[in-house]
Amino acid sequence: MIMTDTIPATMRASVLTGQRQLATSEVPTPSYASDEVLVEVAAVGVCGSDTHYFRHGRIGEFVVDGPLILGHELSGRIVAVGADVPESRIGERVAIEPQKNCRRCRECRAGRYNLCRNMEFFATPPIDGAFARFCVIRTEFAHPIPDSLSDEAAALLEPLSVAITTMRKASIVPGSSILIAGAGPIGIICAQTARAFGAAEIIVTDLVAERRERALTYGATRVIDPREVDIASAGLDVNAFVDASGAPRAVFDGIKAVRPAGVAVLVGLGSSEMNLPIEHIQNLEITVTGIFRYTDTWPAAIHLVASGQVDLDSLVTGRFDLDHAAEALEADLDPDSLKAIVYPCR
Amino acid sequence: MIMTDTIPATMRASVLTGQRQLATSEVPTPSYASDEVLVEVAAVGVCGSDTHYFRHGRIGEFVVDGPLILGHELSGRIVAVGADVPESRIGERVAIEPQKNCRRCRECRAGRYNLCRNMEFFATPPIDGAFARFCVIRTEFAHPIPDSLSDEAAALLEPLSVAITTMRKASIVPGSSILIAGAGPIGIICAQTARAFGAAEIIVTDLVAERRERALTYGATRVIDPREVDIASAGLDVNAFVDASGAPRAVFDGIKAVRPAGVAVLVGLGSSEMNLPIEHIQNLEITVTGIFRYTDTWPAAIHLVASGQVDLDSLVTGRFDLDHAAEALEADLDPDSLKAIVYPCR
Amino acid sequence: MIMTDTIPATMRASVLTGQRQLATSEVPTPSYASDEVLVEVAAVGVCGSDTHYFRHGRIGEFVVDGPLILGHELSGRIVAVGADVPESRIGERVAIEPQKNCRRCRECRAGRYNLCRNMEFFATPPIDGAFARFCVIRTEFAHPIPDSLSDEAAALLEPLSVAITTMRKASIVPGSSILIAGAGPIGIICAQTARAFGAAEIIVTDLVAERRERALTYGATRVIDPREVDIASAGLDVNAFVDASGAPRAVFDGIKAVRPAGVAVLVGLGSSEMNLPIEHIQNLEITVTGIFRYTDTWPAAIHLVASGQVDLDSLVTGRFDLDHAAEALEADLDPDSLKAIVYPCR
Amino acid sequence: MIMTDTIPATMRASVLTGQRQLATSEVPTPSYASDEVLVEVAAVGVCGSDTHYFRHGRIGEFVVDGPLILGHELSGRIVAVGADVPESRIGERVAIEPQKNCRRCRECRAGRYNLCRNMEFFATPPIDGAFARFCVIRTEFAHPIPDSLSDEAAALLEPLSVAITTMRKASIVPGSSILIAGAGPIGIICAQTARAFGAAEIIVTDLVAERRERALTYGATRVIDPREVDIASAGLDVNAFVDASGAPRAVFDGIKAVRPAGVAVLVGLGSSEMNLPIEHIQNLEITVTGIFRYTDTWPAAIHLVASGQVDLDSLVTGRFDLDHAAEALEADLDPDSLKAIVYPCR
Repeated sequence: MIMTDTIPATMRASVLTGQRQLATSEVPTPSYASDEVLVEVAAVGVCGSDTHYFRHGRIGEFVVDGPLILGHELSGRIVAVGADVPESRIGERVAIEPQKNCRRCRECRAGRYNLCRNMEFFATPPIDGAFARFCVIRTEFAHPIPDSLSDEAAALLEPLSVAITTMRKASIVPGSSILIAGAGPIGIICAQTARAFGAAEIIVTDLVAERRERALTYGATRVIDPREVDIASAGLDVNAFVDASGAPRAVFDGIKAVRPAGVAVLVGLGSSEMNLPIEHIQNLEITVTGIFRYTDTWPAAIHLVASGQVDLDSLVTGRFDLDHAAEALEADLDPDSLKAIVYPCR
Repeated sequence: MIMTDTIPATMRASVLTGQRQLATSEVPTPSYASDEVLVEVAAVGVCGSDTHYFRHGRIGEFVVDGPLILGHELSGRIVAVGADVPESRIGERVAIEPQKNCRRCRECRAGRYNLCRNMEFFATPPIDGAFARFCVIRTEFAHPIPDSLSDEAAALLEPLSVAITTMRKASIVPGSSILIAGAGPIGIICAQTARAFGAAEIIVTDLVAERRERALTYGATRVIDPREVDIASAGLDVNAFVDASGAPRAVFDGIKAVRPAGVAVLVGLGSSEMNLPIEHIQNLEITVTGIFRYTDTWPAAIHLVASGQVDLDSLVTGRFDLDHAAEALEADLDPDSLKAIVYPCR
Repeated sequence: MIMTDTIPATMRASVLTGQRQLATSEVPTPSYASDEVLVEVAAVGVCGSDTHYFRHGRIGEFVVDGPLILGHELSGRIVAVGADVPESRIGERVAIEPQKNCRRCRECRAGRYNLCRNMEFFATPPIDGAFARFCVIRTEFAHPIPDSLSDEAAALLEPLSVAITTMRKASIVPGSSILIAGAGPIGIICAQTARAFGAAEIIVTDLVAERRERALTYGATRVIDPREVDIASAGLDVNAFVDASGAPRAVFDGIKAVRPAGVAVLVGLGSSEMNLPIEHIQNLEITVTGIFRYTDTWPAAIHLVASGQVDLDSLVTGRFDLDHAAEALEADLDPDSLKAIVYPCR
Repeated sequence: MIMTDTIPATMRASVLTGQRQLATSEVPTPSYASDEVLVEVAAVGVCGSDTHYFRHGRIGEFVVDGPLILGHELSGRIVAVGADVPESRIGERVAIEPQKNCRRCRECRAGRYNLCRNMEFFATPPIDGAFARFCVIRTEFAHPIPDSLSDEAAALLEPLSVAITTMRKASIVPGSSILIAGAGPIGIICAQTARAFGAAEIIVTDLVAERRERALTYGATRVIDPREVDIASAGLDVNAFVDASGAPRAVFDGIKAVRPAGVAVLVGLGSSEMNLPIEHIQNLEITVTGIFRYTDTWPAAIHLVASGQVDLDSLVTGRFDLDHAAEALEADLDPDSLKAIVYPCR
C-alpha cells in the first residue's frame, strides 16, 4: 500500500476526449479537503450511463464539453485523509458512494441529498469519475467493507444501491409480489434485491430467452416472454412494477399489471416522454414514480452481500485494465455480457 | 316529513332511457336492508359524470345498458331505518356517501373501500342514483349534518370529498404550494380545500378569464393564463400539482412545474392514455397518481363547511325540479354555469 | 375426511369451567353463516393468554364468567361451507386468522380491523376458541396453506402474525438493527422474523443462558445477559427495540438503547402501567407503541414459512390430546418447554 | 441601521454568571464564517428553558458551567454577511432558527437535523444565545420575514415552530380532534396551530380558570378543569393528545383519552421518567412520542402568522431591556404573564 507522504502528484487515468475516444494519460492527482479521503481505486464497474456518454457525449441535459474521466461504481482503499478525518482510516477497504452534495439546499436539509440541486456526481460532466488511480470522496461516503466482499462486489454496491432505492420506493415487504421488466444488470440485481426484501412472487420479463433463464437463477419465481403473454391483461395483479428496460411498451403494459393502490417505479432510462395508461392509474389509484440515485443505501447493501442474500460477483463477465477501458465500454454489445469491470491500477 | 309506516310503494324518478333521453316516471321505492336507511332526497348536485352518461351512455368501461337513475351528490332526510339501525335516526338530515362496498375483499379489508372490486356506486351502471324521491344507503354512509348546512351544501359535500381526497394524496399541509389546472367546479373546490389544508401558495390556471377571476375569490393566490406563461418552465416549483382539467397539455406542463420529491394528482378525466414527461418524473423523483372516489371524508368535509373554511352554497348557479333534470344536465353548456342542483321532491 | 352432509350435531371440546378446571365434554357443533366455513381442527398452539385465562380467569378487562373453550392458534381442514362460499373450498387445509370483526365500525372501515370495537376473537370471553373438534370462521380468514406446511406450523402462523405485525410497526427493513428482550416463543419468532425482514443486527436478551443459546440458532446475531451488560448504557444504538418479556426493567432499559428517531414496540404483556424514560423518548424523538393482534399477515406468514425463512416446526416441545389439554396449559412451567400443541381430534 | 464596515468589536450582552445572576457586560462581537450572517437582534422571547437555566443552572444533562448568554427565540436584521452570502441580504428583517447542525452525521444526512449529535443550539451550554446586540447564524437559518410581521411575532416563530412540529407528529389534519393539556404559552400556541392545521375539536385542560378562559379565545373549542372531569374516562376519544404541561397525571390521563391508533405527543418537560398506561397503549396501538426542536418549520410558521391564522403578538405580556433581563426571566412568577420579550438594543 501506498504511504500518505508518498502520494504522487500525478496519476494515470483514462480520459474521454471525444465521441468514442479514450486516452490513457497522466493527470494531476486530485486534492482532498479536510473532510475528504483519497482513495486508491481497486475496481470500477461500467454502467450504462458511462457507455452512453462514451458513445453520445450526453445524457439528456448533461453534456460532455471537455475531457471527462468516466466510472462511478467503485471500490478501493483509503491512502490519505483530510485534516478532520481520523488517520486510522488509512488502509481501510471501502466502497464509494460517488456523490458530493451541497449539504445546504432545501433537498439536502430534508434528507433527500440525492436530489441536491448543486450535486457533484462522479462521471457526470464536468465532474470526473473513477477510471483513474485515485479519487477523492467525503469521509462519510467512503463506506468500510468487510474482508468477505471482493473488490468487484464492493464496486457493484452502487447498482445494488439503485436496486435498494427501487425496492424502498416500491414498498416491497415480505409477501409482496413484483413484476420487473428487463433482465439486464439492473433487472437482475433488482430481482435479487426484491427477494432479499421478502417478495414472494418475482416475475421478470425479457425478450431474450437466455436472459429470462438467467433471471430464474437470480431470484425470479417466474419469467415471461412479453410477446407470448399480454402483460397488460394477464391478471398479474402485482403490488409493484419496476421497469428496468426503458422500453415504452414494457412500461405501459407493466403499469396495467399493477393492483389497486400499487406502485410503479421507472428505473430504466431512454425516453424523455412516455405514453402512460392514465385511466388505469386513476381508477386504481396507482402511484407512478422514478428513482434518481440513492440516499443511505451502502450499509444495507453491504449487509445484503455479506449475508449472501445478493450475489454480485457472478455478474462480472469481463475485466479490463485502463488501457482497455474502451473495450469495457463496448462490452455491452456482446449479448452475453452482463457487467464489465475496469481495473485502473493493474 | 313522511312517516315510516306510510312509505309509498312507488316514487317519482327521472330515468335515463337512452342517449339524452330522460323520463320522469313512477318506479318502485327501493327496499332497505337491516343495516340501511331510506332517505327522502332533498337536493342532488349534477356532476360531470352524470352529464357524460346522459350524453354518451358510457364512461370508459362503464356502459349504460338499461334504464338508469342518475345523480350521486345528494342530501336528504332519513325517513325509515332497517332493523339494526336505531329508530332515533329517523328525521335526521343527512349527507350521503353514495357507495356500497362489499366489506370483504382485499381492498375493503385494507381500508381502501373506494377501490372495492365489488363496489355498487350510485348512478354508475347498473346501480341507480338519486334523481328520485327516495334512495337507500347503509347507515354509516348517511352522515348527519348540522342545521347550519343547507341542503345544497350538504349535497356538494360529495365533490368536496373528492377535493379532500386530492389534498390528502397531494400531501398539502400548512405552508405548501400547489398548482391547480382548471377552474371548473372541481378546480374551484380544490382551491378552497387547499387553502383549508394550509397551502400558502395556490396557483390556478384556466384558459377563460372569467374563470380565473372567479378562482381568485375562492382561495387562489395567483391565477395564470397558460397561453401567456409557459407553466412547464416558469419555475413555479410547487409541492404539488393537481389537474382538474383533463387536458393533456395541462397535465404535461403541470408535472414539469413540480419540485423534487413533489406530487402530481390527476383528478380530471378524459383520456385513457396520456403522454407524460418521464425524464422529469425520474430525475426529480416526482410521484404521479390519481384519485378514485374517497374514504372517510364526510366528517372532515362537514367541518370545513360548518366552520366557514369552504363555501359550497355560492357555487350553485341553477336549480331544477325532476321534470327539468335534462336541463340541469345541459347546464354546463352555459359557460357561466358552475353547479346545477336537482330537487327531486319539488 | 368428514362429509358435509354428515356433520355431527355435537362435538368433543375441552371446556374451561373454573380456575384450572378443564372438562372434556360434548357440546353443540357451532353453526356457520352464509359467508363462513366449518373447520375440523387439526392442531392448536397454546398461547400465554390461554394459560393466563386457565390460571387466573381473566386478562385485564377480559373476564371469564362462563364456560369457555380456549385456543386461538390453529390449523385445520374445511369440512363445510356457507351458502356464499364456493363448495370447492371443502377439503382445503387452512390456517385460521381467529377473529370476526364487525366490518362496519370506524376502525374496520379504516382497515384497522384488529382494533374493531365489536371484535369477536377466539378464546376471548365470551367467544369460544379451538380446543374442540370443529370451529367456524369467515371464509376470508380461513387461509389456504400449501402441502409443505405441517399442521403445527400452520397453527403457529398465529404467533408468527404477531411477529410480522411487530416488525412492520418497528419498521424493520434490510440493514436495520433490532434489540429483542425475551427469548420465549414470541422473542424467538420475532428474532427469526426480524432476520426475514432483513435486519442486519439482531440482539436478544434473556436472563436464562439456555434461552440465549437457543436464540442464537433462531436468528440472533448477538445475545446478552442483561445482568452482565447494562442495556441502557451499552451504546447499542438500535433502530428498534421489541419487548417480548413484559418485564418493566427490560422495557425501560430497552427504550434507552434506541437511537434517535427509532421505535420501541411493546409486545410482552403483564403490567397495566409502566415507568418509562420520558426524557430519553423526548430528546431522541423515539416512538413507543404496542401491537394488538394483526391485520393481513397470514399470506406473508405462509410465504416466510414455505420459503424456509422462518422455522416454526422445531418450536414445538409438547403434544397433547384433548383429554390432556390441562397438561398442555401447564407445560410452560417446564423451562425447556417452548410451544405446546393440542390435537383436538386425536 | 449599522453599516457592515462599522461593526463594533464588542457588544452589550446579558450574561448568566451564576444561579439567578445576570450581568450586563461588554463582550466580543461574534465572528461569522463564509456561510453565516451577523444579525442585530431586535426582540427575544423568554422561554421556560431560559428561566430554568437561570434558576437551576441545568436542564437534565445540559449543565451551565461557565458564563452563558441566554435567549433563543429571536428576530433581528442582517447587518453583515459572510463571503458566500449575497450582500443583498444585508438589511433584511429575519427570524432566526437558532441551531447550527453538523450537516454530516447520520441524523443530518437523513434530514433529521434537529437530532444532530453535534448540534450547537442557542442558549444551550456552552453555546451563547441572543440576549445581546448581535448574534451569528447560518444564512439558511436567517428566514426573511414580511413587513406585516412585528419583531415580537417574528421572535415567537420559535415556539410556533415547536407547535408546528407537534401538530405534524400528532398527524393533525382537517377534521381531527385533539386534547391539549396545559394552557401556558406552548399550550396556547398549540391550540391556535391545531386550528390552523384543521382540527375540528380542540379540547384544552388547565387547572386555572383564567387560563382556560384564555384558551377559548385562542382556538379551543372546549376547555376542561381536570379536577371536575376525569379525562381518562370521559370518552374524549381524540385522535391526538398533546401534553404541554409536563404534569405526570395529565400525561397519564391524556393518553387514556386517545382513540385506537391515535397519537400522544409529549412536549412538556419536567420528568426524566413517567408512569404510563401501557396496557391502554398496547390494546389500542397508541403511539407515544416526544418532540425535540424542529426542522423546516419557519416558512410554514411565517405563513400561519402572515395569513392571520395564528396570533403571536397578543401573547406578549411584558417587555424588558437588557438591564432588566432578570425581571423578564422571573416574569412567569406572575400568573397573568404569558410571554416576556427582551429588547437587547433598547
